[in-house]
Amino acid sequence: MADDDFEQLLTASQRAARALGVAPAERRHAAIQAIAEAIERSAGAILAANAEDIARGRESGLAEGLLDRLLLDDARIASLAAAARQLAELPDPVGEVLRHRTLPNGLDLTEVRVPFGVIGVIYEARPNVTVDLACIALGSGNAVVLRGGSAAERTNAVLVEAMQGAIEGAGLPRESVQTIDRFGRDGAGRLMRARGLVDLLVPRGSAALIERVVTESTVPVIETGAGVVHAFVDRAAQLPMALEIVLNAKAQRTSVCNALETVLVHREIAETAVPALAEALREAGVTVHADAPLPGVEGAEPLGEGGWSTEHLSMDIAIGVVDDLDAAIEHVNRFGTHHTDTIVTDDPDAAGRFLAEVDSAVVMHNASTRFTDGGEFGFGAEVGISTQKAHARGPMGLPELTSTKWIVRGTGQVRA
Amino acid sequence: MADDDFEQLLTASQRAARALGVAPAERRHAAIQAIAEAIERSAGAILAANAEDIARGRESGLAEGLLDRLLLDDARIASLAAAARQLAELPDPVGEVLRHRTLPNGLDLTEVRVPFGVIGVIYEARPNVTVDLACIALGSGNAVVLRGGSAAERTNAVLVEAMQGAIEGAGLPRESVQTIDRFGRDGAGRLMRARGLVDLLVPRGSAALIERVVTESTVPVIETGAGVVHAFVDRAAQLPMALEIVLNAKAQRTSVCNALETVLVHREIAETAVPALAEALREAGVTVHADAPLPGVEGAEPLGEGGWSTEHLSMDIAIGVVDDLDAAIEHVNRFGTHHTDTIVTDDPDAAGRFLAEVDSAVVMHNASTRFTDGGEFGFGAEVGISTQKAHARGPMGLPELTSTKWIVRGTGQVRA
Repeated sequence: MADDDFEQLLTASQRAARALGVAPAERRHAAIQAIAEAIERSAGAILAANAEDIARGRESGLAEGLLDRLLLDDARIASLAAAARQLAELPDPVGEVLRHRTLPNGLDLTEVRVPFGVIGVIYEARPNVTVDLACIALGSGNAVVLRGGSAAERTNAVLVEAMQGAIEGAGLPRESVQTIDRFGRDGAGRLMRARGLVDLLVPRGSAALIERVVTESTVPVIETGAGVVHAFVDRAAQLPMALEIVLNAKAQRTSVCNALETVLVHREIAETAVPALAEALREAGVTVHADAPLPGVEGAEPLGEGGWSTEHLSMDIAIGVVDDLDAAIEHVNRFGTHHTDTIVTDDPDAAGRFLAEVDSAVVMHNASTRFTDGGEFGFGAEVGISTQKAHARGPMGLPELTSTKWIVRGTGQVRA
Repeated sequence: MADDDFEQLLTASQRAARALGVAPAERRHAAIQAIAEAIERSAGAILAANAEDIARGRESGLAEGLLDRLLLDDARIASLAAAARQLAELPDPVGEVLRHRTLPNGLDLTEVRVPFGVIGVIYEARPNVTVDLACIALGSGNAVVLRGGSAAERTNAVLVEAMQGAIEGAGLPRESVQTIDRFGRDGAGRLMRARGLVDLLVPRGSAALIERVVTESTVPVIETGAGVVHAFVDRAAQLPMALEIVLNAKAQRTSVCNALETVLVHREIAETAVPALAEALREAGVTVHADAPLPGVEGAEPLGEGGWSTEHLSMDIAIGVVDDLDAAIEHVNRFGTHHTDTIVTDDPDAAGRFLAEVDSAVVMHNASTRFTDGGEFGFGAEVGISTQKAHARGPMGLPELTSTKWIVRGTGQVRA
């Protein structure tokens, strides 16, 4: 495809964004409702396209886990529609007044939330993300340009087509949601260089993808995802609570970014806590890794290739003994990804220092790291979990997909 | 200098940032006060270094305007110190609670403002910016790494040295403020690639510099500055008010980003408004540019090389006639830099549409664009004016130099 086509597509997104920016929330919410209905109505076509993707995936040897993420069936179609209906109920962030002041010269200043405009998302082969992101974008007044994984290309094409029809039926531009999958592998790169046409880029996927986007993109990026997540079991921890939190954070679900990767144990309690933790983890099927002999633990595996920075996303965990709270904080800040880290302790001073000095999006005291999640936080939606410090940090909901604007109302004021 | 030295310098900034992050506001404010005193005490050394920079500047043929920006004298030293004392009075943004909620499971969630950590600033040869930025960084709990223009290198070296002593005297790490000027031209490039060591990069300077930083940097950037600023004189404008606003916005000060570059006039009033505007502007010494014959105006110059996107920053202005409000909005969104744009009108509907549909950081009704300024907005400080949509938009004060963090307090909660 020529670059022209690509630019035309993005220009159409910009026009759609302008229409969305002035569309009342009711109309945008109606479009989301229409999407839910369209998905149910198009279930046959969606499942047929999905079957093609699945067959192609099997042929090309896609891993079972990925095939499962890709797979749609009647129940999952229903839950796509249900998720859309939930998103249509979320409060509208657009127009929210953030600051207001009247200057001595009578000028009236209001800072309000406005949509970004055009948001690009590069993500993996998960059809539910396609629908979620389209609805979240509509809910925040943004047009969205999607680059899904090629493995889900046919499913996504049918989903986008169905959603575009629904949006148009609700009186908004069908280009509010577009896919660039037809531009193939190049599309992502072009999207990254579309400064001036795309206002924000959100990569969701592997660490390698995110690294590439951050390095190459001239469009502002929000980094999401990578989670080398720690629990520090302090000397003043209740051991049963530590066991429960560590097991939950590691084993309740392993493939997610808020799953635990490393447990640090205070040296003063290591002789009892480390064997207890290792035993409980092994009983749950978790493989223990370490870089040095652990007290009371035989046969720990070495650390992963990335050492203490390894993100396993599997039933593997690294256990380390640290001299004190300072060493724990130092370790977390050095090897972590500034995602989520928790301390288990009954000592309020130790907790206070950990919460203040660990430089992560979410810091926790006596809680499982698995709670770092837009749904759990009560946002009703999640665009991803930002691990950068600019614009948004931690779980991102609808307000995080807005920018701001200062509106100044005067009566002829000029500057002296 | 070896890369090692550069990395060591940034690592020292990180350590300083960690200390600043937990230092109480009183100590940071005391450090700013100490900076004010140190500048006064070191006036002799600062003026001597500045005289060297000025002499070097004259030799190398630096323009008079730039020499004037560079020059320090007793009065300007006094105002540097005074500015620092003002910044020491600003409210501390660190720790401000932005959101708080208690989840049904008892988890207590608090979103608080935290410093970014290490902020890099690449700027022009203005010694006052060196002091301002150091104080603003301290006021927001951040360490700052400065790359000033080479023309001010000696002045900045003495200023930084004096400030470091003051900060150390106040019990904070001297590396809270560092300059990378000794790394020469390469320093800026290295700063842009220091992802993981630098948390935010703010370029302040020419459009070319900003473009380079946005393109090359892997560190998150806040774009500041470029201002192709418009006034739209609507058919329902009061002509005397339009004249006053246009003259003020163009001629009160021309070298600044919020100065007016283009006036658009509604066709229905063009025959009276355009000649009146052109005459008043010419009387004030402004050269009128246009891309087509203007009603009642002889001898307009052609547009600049950049056409309607030219940022003159001088006593030059472009005047255009547009068919209607839609054409005006279209023109502003197409050729502007999304900085500041104003409409002069008595028609509330036209004003409402302009304010809603012009996609700029600051949109105004019946006011001079010169008001887009941290000082005028009552921020007490200005890091720059962001023209991007992510993180901060418009004038940036202390809160815009902070990130956020979620603090989760539990009693052993795990996820079901």
